[in-house]
Amino acid sequence: MDQSQYFRFELLHEDRDTGARYGKLYTPHGVIETPCYMPVGTQATVKAMSPRELTEIKTQILLANTYHLYLRPGSALVKEAGGLHGFMNWQGPILTDSGGFQVFSLGELRKITEEGVTFRSHLDGSKHLFTPESVMQTEADLGADIIMAFDECCAYPSEYAYTEQAMHRTHRWAERCQAAQKRQDQALFGIVQGGMYEDLRKESARTIASMDFIGNAIGGLSVGEPKPLMYELLTVLNGVMPKDKPRYLMGVGSPDCLFEGAERGVDMFDCVLQTRVARNGLALTSQGPLTIRNATFERDFTPIDPKCDCYACKEFTRAYVRHLVKAKEILASRLLSWHNLRFSLKVMEDMREAIKNDCFLEFKRAFYEGYGLPC
Amino acid sequence: MDQSQYFRFELLHEDRDTGARYGKLYTPHGVIETPCYMPVGTQATVKAMSPRELTEIKTQILLANTYHLYLRPGSALVKEAGGLHGFMNWQGPILTDSGGFQVFSLGELRKITEEGVTFRSHLDGSKHLFTPESVMQTEADLGADIIMAFDECCAYPSEYAYTEQAMHRTHRWAERCQAAQKRQDQALFGIVQGGMYEDLRKESARTIASMDFIGNAIGGLSVGEPKPLMYELLTVLNGVMPKDKPRYLMGVGSPDCLFEGAERGVDMFDCVLQTRVARNGLALTSQGPLTIRNATFERDFTPIDPKCDCYACKEFTRAYVRHLVKAKEILASRLLSWHNLRFSLKVMEDMREAIKNDCFLEFKRAFYEGYGLPC
Repeated sequence: MDQSQYFRFELLHEDRDTGARYGKLYTPHGVIETPCYMPVGTQATVKAMSPRELTEIKTQILLANTYHLYLRPGSALVKEAGGLHGFMNWQGPILTDSGGFQVFSLGELRKITEEGVTFRSHLDGSKHLFTPESVMQTEADLGADIIMAFDECCAYPSEYAYTEQAMHRTHRWAERCQAAQKRQDQALFGIVQGGMYEDLRKESARTIASMDFIGNAIGGLSVGEPKPLMYELLTVLNGVMPKDKPRYLMGVGSPDCLFEGAERGVDMFDCVLQTRVARNGLALTSQGPLTIRNATFERDFTPIDPKCDCYACKEFTRAYVRHLVKAKEILASRLLSWHNLRFSLKVMEDMREAIKNDCFLEFKRAFYEGYGLPC
Repeated sequence: MDQSQYFRFELLHEDRDTGARYGKLYTPHGVIETPCYMPVGTQATVKAMSPRELTEIKTQILLANTYHLYLRPGSALVKEAGGLHGFMNWQGPILTDSGGFQVFSLGELRKITEEGVTFRSHLDGSKHLFTPESVMQTEADLGADIIMAFDECCAYPSEYAYTEQAMHRTHRWAERCQAAQKRQDQALFGIVQGGMYEDLRKESARTIASMDFIGNAIGGLSVGEPKPLMYELLTVLNGVMPKDKPRYLMGVGSPDCLFEGAERGVDMFDCVLQTRVARNGLALTSQGPLTIRNATFERDFTPIDPKCDCYACKEFTRAYVRHLVKAKEILASRLLSWHNLRFSLKVMEDMREAIKNDCFLEFKRAFYEGYGLPC
């Protein structure tokens, strides 16, 4: 399938000192500068945010979850509404995952066979089957610009033999996904698995690369392993994965991981941390994470993050946001989600500038000086 | 205290057929066209809304609750933050109630004496005393443009003797509030009580009128009595309350009450219904209240209210909002609060035009034709 009229990836600059790369990914709904952070809109809404606010904070691309949308409201309804873009009224690029990670996370509620995964809904216990073919249909109905192959993710830790078996199945499923892909205007990304085993990761990266997907993703990381182990594997993968294609590190995107991933050649990140911790009253700032609920901030009439350019920081004080958190007001979740997302997007904007100027490491050092060192 | 440089009420037009009036109330933070609906920001935030959204939907004035803010975050902190305007970053007019209704509603947790009301906090059980003097201090610290006298509200039903006694106490407390008022740039409104007794209401209206407040309020209605009884009393009060001063019907503002009140000469309304029902998935529309969660709306790709000009109606569908409600997403509360508030504000905008054009009754009939008749 020739999709070159819909998708193109330009690798525009490689940092002098590290694996960090600056590029542009062209999609039917717009151009994405990389490396980029993608806010997560699990149920066709980025929690507490409106689409126009996402535009205001310069969101380039959103992620939505196939598993959740398949169950509710159902992909047929989303298709009728004009796909996710029409349904949620977001006109920029969208990426949908395959549901592989979600059904894997259901534990006792799912059963994996060669055909696919049988699982019970976390909502009503009803029984469902995801296969590579069915997921390609669901993702076609949802209509995202970038769609992910259906893969098998391993828990941490997992034994070598099982990890290898899951990896091979992931490769076979990737082929079935390619064969079953419905739409030319959707870019299918393959997913590298292989758990925490370097040789398996290399083998998986080579196999997935050989299948010539428009983009390649790294799945099965940040599943409980120590961060240094993840960084080691990313270093290995950076040497094997194709340079001329976008690389997406799935489900990873805390501020330190954005730096450590980009340094190892990752182009795309997504993470729910930004909005999840916001709803618990935590602000990610240039001075590190702040628990806004703390008494320290009771009479702090300065912005959440004095260095931030977002609405929440320009118009409100820590004292006010603390009051909203303590009073359990919706505006607390809104302002902190707003800020945490903008903070992460701005980090990536600045990071792209740093890469273009060959000063990624300098920028990283300066960031950690304020934020605190990664563990 | 001469406050004419801060406050002025212009009665600009009286409807030919009814008691409805069009006017302008000048305050230090802006001019309010009346009759008006005031969104309620109990804890220094209108639930689910941001201040700039309130501006966008053309909110003229907000209400905030003294009882809640006194307990949390405390009026001293709000004062330090520059008063409510600075604390919550709302630059338009604000009205604070006196906490009278809230402490009255605490039931077993409060005790009324001539001095004031002793009560226990609903948050932590701590003991507090509100007196007319203390409330004037608290409201001065909060810094609203319009402040309410501390009154005693009666439950429905209440016996004549008790209602009369509470009314007389309300009058004595009103005098103490006048004597204790701190700031020239705050308009103190007196409150008419008298329960469901026509003669007491008349007496109270005359007494409060004689005290020459900048505005006069009607308290103790919509406390459980049948609406027709409230309307009867409003008709009576319309004949007694001064015409040249703004009249505020406290805690009342469902769509039908906005019409029935304005028809009887009420200039100001406030009500939490708009935002409260929004959080339960109910939309107030030109076609009547809609329970958006209902299956009817599953594939309804039309706006919440096709006649509405708000962001929620212009950019999203009933099907999408239904999905958000069912998925318990914050955006559901946001979009429905946004719409319900804009709907009510727009009703008042159109009502003011109708009054100016002497066609209030025609406008009211047309509204009820779509919305459904009041009970």
